[in-house]
Amino acid sequence: MDNAVNDGLKRPVYDDATGSHEDFRPEKDLLGFRKIPQNVRWGIHTARAQDNFPISGIPIGASPFLVKGMVLVKQAAARTNFRLGTLETWRADAIDKACQNILDNQVLHEEFVVDVMQGGAGTSTNMNVNEVIANVALDLLGKAHGDYTVLHPNDHVNMMQSTNDSYPTGLRVAVLLALEPLLETLMDLAKSLRAKSAEFRDVLKLGRTQLRDAVPMTLGQEFGAFSTMIQSEIANLKNVSGQLLAINLGGTAIGTGITAHPDFGAFATQELRRLTGYEFERAPDLVEATSDVGAFVSFSGALKRLSLKLSKIAGDLRLLSSGPWAGFGEISLPAVQAGSSIMPGKVNPVIPEAINQVAYLVCGHDLTVTMCAEGGQLQLNPFEPMIAHCLFSSMHCLTNAVTVLTTRCVDGIEAEWERCRSYIEGSASIITALVPRLGYEVCSRLAKRALVEKRKILDLLLEESLLPSEELAELLRPELLTGAASGVSVERPQS
Amino acid sequence: MDNAVNDGLKRPVYDDATGSHEDFRPEKDLLGFRKIPQNVRWGIHTARAQDNFPISGIPIGASPFLVKGMVLVKQAAARTNFRLGTLETWRADAIDKACQNILDNQVLHEEFVVDVMQGGAGTSTNMNVNEVIANVALDLLGKAHGDYTVLHPNDHVNMMQSTNDSYPTGLRVAVLLALEPLLETLMDLAKSLRAKSAEFRDVLKLGRTQLRDAVPMTLGQEFGAFSTMIQSEIANLKNVSGQLLAINLGGTAIGTGITAHPDFGAFATQELRRLTGYEFERAPDLVEATSDVGAFVSFSGALKRLSLKLSKIAGDLRLLSSGPWAGFGEISLPAVQAGSSIMPGKVNPVIPEAINQVAYLVCGHDLTVTMCAEGGQLQLNPFEPMIAHCLFSSMHCLTNAVTVLTTRCVDGIEAEWERCRSYIEGSASIITALVPRLGYEVCSRLAKRALVEKRKILDLLLEESLLPSEELAELLRPELLTGAASGVSVERPQS
Amino acid sequence: MDNAVNDGLKRPVYDDATGSHEDFRPEKDLLGFRKIPQNVRWGIHTARAQDNFPISGIPIGASPFLVKGMVLVKQAAARTNFRLGTLETWRADAIDKACQNILDNQVLHEEFVVDVMQGGAGTSTNMNVNEVIANVALDLLGKAHGDYTVLHPNDHVNMMQSTNDSYPTGLRVAVLLALEPLLETLMDLAKSLRAKSAEFRDVLKLGRTQLRDAVPMTLGQEFGAFSTMIQSEIANLKNVSGQLLAINLGGTAIGTGITAHPDFGAFATQELRRLTGYEFERAPDLVEATSDVGAFVSFSGALKRLSLKLSKIAGDLRLLSSGPWAGFGEISLPAVQAGSSIMPGKVNPVIPEAINQVAYLVCGHDLTVTMCAEGGQLQLNPFEPMIAHCLFSSMHCLTNAVTVLTTRCVDGIEAEWERCRSYIEGSASIITALVPRLGYEVCSRLAKRALVEKRKILDLLLEESLLPSEELAELLRPELLTGAASGVSVERPQS
Amino acid sequence: MDNAVNDGLKRPVYDDATGSHEDFRPEKDLLGFRKIPQNVRWGIHTARAQDNFPISGIPIGASPFLVKGMVLVKQAAARTNFRLGTLETWRADAIDKACQNILDNQVLHEEFVVDVMQGGAGTSTNMNVNEVIANVALDLLGKAHGDYTVLHPNDHVNMMQSTNDSYPTGLRVAVLLALEPLLETLMDLAKSLRAKSAEFRDVLKLGRTQLRDAVPMTLGQEFGAFSTMIQSEIANLKNVSGQLLAINLGGTAIGTGITAHPDFGAFATQELRRLTGYEFERAPDLVEATSDVGAFVSFSGALKRLSLKLSKIAGDLRLLSSGPWAGFGEISLPAVQAGSSIMPGKVNPVIPEAINQVAYLVCGHDLTVTMCAEGGQLQLNPFEPMIAHCLFSSMHCLTNAVTVLTTRCVDGIEAEWERCRSYIEGSASIITALVPRLGYEVCSRLAKRALVEKRKILDLLLEESLLPSEELAELLRPELLTGAASGVSVERPQS
Repeated sequence: MDNAVNDGLKRPVYDDATGSHEDFRPEKDLLGFRKIPQNVRWGIHTARAQDNFPISGIPIGASPFLVKGMVLVKQAAARTNFRLGTLETWRADAIDKACQNILDNQVLHEEFVVDVMQGGAGTSTNMNVNEVIANVALDLLGKAHGDYTVLHPNDHVNMMQSTNDSYPTGLRVAVLLALEPLLETLMDLAKSLRAKSAEFRDVLKLGRTQLRDAVPMTLGQEFGAFSTMIQSEIANLKNVSGQLLAINLGGTAIGTGITAHPDFGAFATQELRRLTGYEFERAPDLVEATSDVGAFVSFSGALKRLSLKLSKIAGDLRLLSSGPWAGFGEISLPAVQAGSSIMPGKVNPVIPEAINQVAYLVCGHDLTVTMCAEGGQLQLNPFEPMIAHCLFSSMHCLTNAVTVLTTRCVDGIEAEWERCRSYIEGSASIITALVPRLGYEVCSRLAKRALVEKRKILDLLLEESLLPSEELAELLRPELLTGAASGVSVERPQS
Repeated sequence: MDNAVNDGLKRPVYDDATGSHEDFRPEKDLLGFRKIPQNVRWGIHTARAQDNFPISGIPIGASPFLVKGMVLVKQAAARTNFRLGTLETWRADAIDKACQNILDNQVLHEEFVVDVMQGGAGTSTNMNVNEVIANVALDLLGKAHGDYTVLHPNDHVNMMQSTNDSYPTGLRVAVLLALEPLLETLMDLAKSLRAKSAEFRDVLKLGRTQLRDAVPMTLGQEFGAFSTMIQSEIANLKNVSGQLLAINLGGTAIGTGITAHPDFGAFATQELRRLTGYEFERAPDLVEATSDVGAFVSFSGALKRLSLKLSKIAGDLRLLSSGPWAGFGEISLPAVQAGSSIMPGKVNPVIPEAINQVAYLVCGHDLTVTMCAEGGQLQLNPFEPMIAHCLFSSMHCLTNAVTVLTTRCVDGIEAEWERCRSYIEGSASIITALVPRLGYEVCSRLAKRALVEKRKILDLLLEESLLPSEELAELLRPELLTGAASGVSVERPQS
Repeated sequence: MDNAVNDGLKRPVYDDATGSHEDFRPEKDLLGFRKIPQNVRWGIHTARAQDNFPISGIPIGASPFLVKGMVLVKQAAARTNFRLGTLETWRADAIDKACQNILDNQVLHEEFVVDVMQGGAGTSTNMNVNEVIANVALDLLGKAHGDYTVLHPNDHVNMMQSTNDSYPTGLRVAVLLALEPLLETLMDLAKSLRAKSAEFRDVLKLGRTQLRDAVPMTLGQEFGAFSTMIQSEIANLKNVSGQLLAINLGGTAIGTGITAHPDFGAFATQELRRLTGYEFERAPDLVEATSDVGAFVSFSGALKRLSLKLSKIAGDLRLLSSGPWAGFGEISLPAVQAGSSIMPGKVNPVIPEAINQVAYLVCGHDLTVTMCAEGGQLQLNPFEPMIAHCLFSSMHCLTNAVTVLTTRCVDGIEAEWERCRSYIEGSASIITALVPRLGYEVCSRLAKRALVEKRKILDLLLEESLLPSEELAELLRPELLTGAASGVSVERPQS
Repeated sequence: MDNAVNDGLKRPVYDDATGSHEDFRPEKDLLGFRKIPQNVRWGIHTARAQDNFPISGIPIGASPFLVKGMVLVKQAAARTNFRLGTLETWRADAIDKACQNILDNQVLHEEFVVDVMQGGAGTSTNMNVNEVIANVALDLLGKAHGDYTVLHPNDHVNMMQSTNDSYPTGLRVAVLLALEPLLETLMDLAKSLRAKSAEFRDVLKLGRTQLRDAVPMTLGQEFGAFSTMIQSEIANLKNVSGQLLAINLGGTAIGTGITAHPDFGAFATQELRRLTGYEFERAPDLVEATSDVGAFVSFSGALKRLSLKLSKIAGDLRLLSSGPWAGFGEISLPAVQAGSSIMPGKVNPVIPEAINQVAYLVCGHDLTVTMCAEGGQLQLNPFEPMIAHCLFSSMHCLTNAVTVLTTRCVDGIEAEWERCRSYIEGSASIITALVPRLGYEVCSRLAKRALVEKRKILDLLLEESLLPSEELAELLRPELLTGAASGVSVERPQS
């Protein structure tokens, strides 16, 4: 049997469309017979879906997470059916092992061929999974592909399930799995930004509100705020992802549990917790849960919020590094490629620009998720496959883009401290520090005079003898101006 | 002094533009002098904003919540400054009482005249509030409007604050205040739907997935799911609104706390908690908090998610009530108006249609909030006024639309139980219940035969003698089919 | 009769809910009787709608354009029915005059009280219009309000029409009317920008791509491009608005023309052309036209595109004026208000910020329109009232915001030519001009050397003797660098 | 030389990372040296971009259109430089032939390896194209890859161009190329719908507005309206795509034409017209055109509008085919796959569901395009690569989905004429036809009576003797009811 399995795991040759008829097996469904290449593990339902959905050209196997999520659900179901005595030991065992094989073996992911863009509420994905598991199990049992009297994709692999509970559950597992690398890469980014915050702790600069010179701060505070932003997005993603833990296994077609053993849902949820380590719970109202996609809407919203923050940071990095001469020029981003096909020596902020664009893509995907959610009718939302595609695509691009941002941009940022210092020395805006002492109106007059006469605010203060020079020096100490002395933390690490 | 106050609270005559010059007071700012009608309590900064922003025509006073939120912040600030000893008792007291006057007196809301659509990051709103409070306080002190040497909008009312901390804080208070009536109306809707669920407990019907006949359920289960949906949105709104509790008082212009006493932020937060009953906390990184609008993005997202659920329910109600003859016809909505100017007797689902449209508006507003959030640069996001407008407008319309949905639609829905029953009797789809007993393929064959031969599935089952009729009767018991017997709750109330 | 009319046009007292019963008239519909205040001109259908839609609080009468558009359609219909002989001369005449009265008399707009947010596909708006016209006609005929046996809102005013053809037609007229002031204000903006372009013709500056120093240009070219942008949006709006000229009068309920005279549609279209001056045509497929909202989607898209351009210009103005010290500082925007409640002397780009926010609002409204369009089902799209609200609100805010942008910002912009000049002198990026002469690689090396050694590119060129100084001077002539000499027009006015 | 070319076109082995050093060639840029696999035709700028943008995993070569568009621009540029005498005949010739090679040879598309998601405003795409063309030309000249002294990617292939004019121009060509198959597939759909309209010409049914029984029509009219809808989208796409014909060749970096011969732009535009057959024109203001992406916004908007119509049609098909028993059941969609993993015999409208989802994806992409457009600053919009990705992805999925809709769904739709007929016979809504004869109020009373007493409207009419039965029969003739007799065309083909 082991041999059979080893043979079976060879990469299938899909394009043998001209093979002799013994290279095909017939399979049958509602619509009649159809020839299936003998060596593939998907079956007739998958074949129909391939006929029906040549839309994006991207197979569901392209994202490892969805396949894993679905297979884990099937594994949990098989173990539950074994426990309930509704599935024979040998069948449950074969399904269980087949699932493990797929989880362990990336080659088998090539069997998941239905398009990510599909009608049918995920039925084609579910059937592709059922069929592949059944045929891998048949491999393991030394039986021929398609010998479903031995082990059937629907009657055994899909036992006590419907697409309408197993697919949304598998999708939830998958999203949680895909979130892990994204969180890791975000933690790296937050750490990198925090390190820059420490590095730039003493770089005094002028803060800007509404792009206008405001009051002093340090470049360290600015990068510390970026880091805090990312930390808060990590926390938000974790928090929102908790909504994905409510699942509807056992609800079957519309949440009423038709065809399922009364204990199936609770037991299968337990198994899935055990297999994944995620704290899944049953949704309190299975009829509601079957049609509901609210958790995906919230999760997509959290990805969108993250992307807005990334876009804000990217935009700020581009502004702060603008120039090198005719811009803000407060920081330098590492040069990573020549910037122009015509302007020699030009270096552009290409990594932050990629971040902005990925952020806009995620916002677009969030709208698609929104419209999919809105379009659901009655007992089911048939648009979950597109929701899945958008979430996985967003997470994939975000994970990659954030990694690049950290390693090829933030890590190499340098402060242009002389430029930073020159801004603060030339600006009239430190007058704000004297408002509590001199009042808003006197300060307004001085600020205007400085602007009109192009003179330094300090000179005017001394000329008008409004304050003793010692007091002035004290009031304008950098530590005081930037809040370092006033209990406002410059960089307070969060847990 | 009391008299002065009573006089002062007369409704101002704004349109007296032709009055003699003793009806005006001069005020001065950076740009020079400007005449302000003597009887109004707003001042020159408000006047400038009126000149600059004749955009929407909607004054900020049109939404009571923003005014209240801002005034509560000013009240908390005055009390804090009194506690710190930075403001004289009589001034603090006058400001405190002026705030209370405004909170208690709707007429004074007409003094908040700047347009909801304004540039300047909320400065015009903040200054309008500062000026009105100062002049109401001057009323209380028996002084003339504009006598700011006695009590100054910036030096005293705005003491230790910037627009950049007081405005976002006031906005957070306001959103929390505006959420209360929305939550109440949602609870009424959930209750009404739950009552219908109980009323329709025994109405057996056919569930539909992808608009196709699926398996049996009760109309009670369907309305129960609607109720669960709304309950879950209430929980989500409450949960997400918790993010609004992190405030940045004491950060002033850019979060560094310039011009503020080191204890101001913590004390003022404490006061605001006491005044509002909301559990406000200081944001951990004030520089980050000053530019951040993530909490508003999340809150807007929660409103959007609510609106998607309302839209789904509205769409389902329209589908279920479609007809009366050539549609689903499973329920009747109460007739609330004639439906057509040309088709006599036509009655339309106008209330659910209003819900759909409000839901789409909220989705649009969420996009506006998203773009406002994305556009922030460096130490501040200047687009909070539009974020505010969108949130208040969405909550206003949602609150009203949900009230109408409950009282003029859901409360009066009736079941068309005969139509519901007829569907279930004619459909082949109860065959699903027999899959565990007969297998997927046999059942598929029977279902197809029923469709092609236009015969009832029960007759075919008996004809083919696939099951003893007693077992068949048992397997097709309604309680079993709808899950009532299998531990799936039909209507499980949530806390 | 004139007297009656004059009396009738007094402003109605709506709040007399406690009047004796002779102050009310009874009206009757499908649902039964309802008391209507005697002095108002709306009737029972309007009253029902007020009960059903207390949603936004904004009456349709708040936008003059929708009322005008609807009334013009009714006027065209009355004249057509007179022409066809289907309406008696005296009735047609009374309706015609009533319509003209409403068009001429703003006070009557207060009779249009149904909420802009309404279910029912515009039926309530149509009935409000039918009822007011009928009662104004009864005024003119010296009859009592509500005496519909004389002249009936449905049988006479709505004759040969359905809401489903008269409402979308009226909406099209209204959008075209509302477009006119927007186009005018845009033309003023384009003109103002073009004038600045001429004024700044000789201000040499450094162009920036990706916020990095690029190659020389003039500030005049930059403002010229802004003007061209607006001109192109004017052209786009005009072009897209042409789609609104296809109307479906005569299609009645679903486009089949039931109840309408075969010639009604063609004749009424002719009348409407005559009354409005717009070149309306009948849609080629009335069944399609009745459910279609594609023209509104396109028009909303054109408003969105305009708003993106306005937002880009606003963002550029904020960037170019950033500082005054620690920013680009190439231009100064006029100071229109004090910018900060805490920072004395700070002046912010508040007008461009308002523009950005209005632009984001319009994008949000466009999404709402998109979702309304998507949600239409079968023979009608019931969500046109929200489409209408979004279009009118967007156009209203855009018209006002653009006016402010022109008059309070662009007209007063000044060039900081010394700053502009200093950038170009210090930058290495003029090396680009030498690429055709020296090659990309040599120039890259020089540019890098200038950056690293912090030396001027001209010095390096001379030091390396790569070019004779005369040729260098010729190659770096400003006219050549900015394209003024090369046939690229700096400011080419468009027709 | 021919031999060299033939050798050169062998598929490159990219993964030979461990080869001996003679398998690599060194290339140099601003950042220093980098080893490039000898057999590949891309160079160091492409390699840098691969390092910087491992974002989506999708290479630009995956969409044939962008590559073709860019190469056509380069071909036009080479011919223009030859004509101007600025490029030697043998170099121009080699570039020209290299371009033709790439256009003719799909294998070479594998050389276009930079990620579709990239920062840098398309510079990496442009450099990838310049490098591949240069090295293919070197192949043709019998020279080694990387021997750029012979023929240089920047100095010769990119001569007189910048990314900022050649990339947006190439993108325009590409979008126009990609539009062609989409238009073809839409024309097939319109034709298929029109054929169904003819087939269903005599199927009388009840039209529905707001999902409520309205007035009679034919199923042919309904499908005719679908066809008209698609025809109108074809016209709209063609019309809007005209905006893509304004190009900015010759503007180089920022539209000022720096480094370009004064005649280059006009001549190159002419060449491009000749090569593509598209009527390209020069934009009137090249500075404006360089930063402008309005044409892409409009084009994306047209794709969105198309997708809204497809979504509407898909939704209607799902509604009309709902059932088979407990739904509208007026049409049957062809069964293309088993619909459920649990419900035997269930067949779902999976093709229309795929359409809905693709439509939502396109709406999401349109938002991404919107945000990319909004984010442009100063002289360039750096986010065109994401705009490109969204447009190509939308068009790709739409083309495929529409093909499937036509061939696997619409072509096989059948009318359930008995069901259609039964609705019209049972409904009271034909009363509308009698309104002109009996008045709105009498008809309202009759309609209500029919509903309450559950009697047929015809019986009531006869019982009340309101009309002679002959007149009644005449008034209710189907041809009259559906407008076929009244000049309203049932199916009027458009050109």
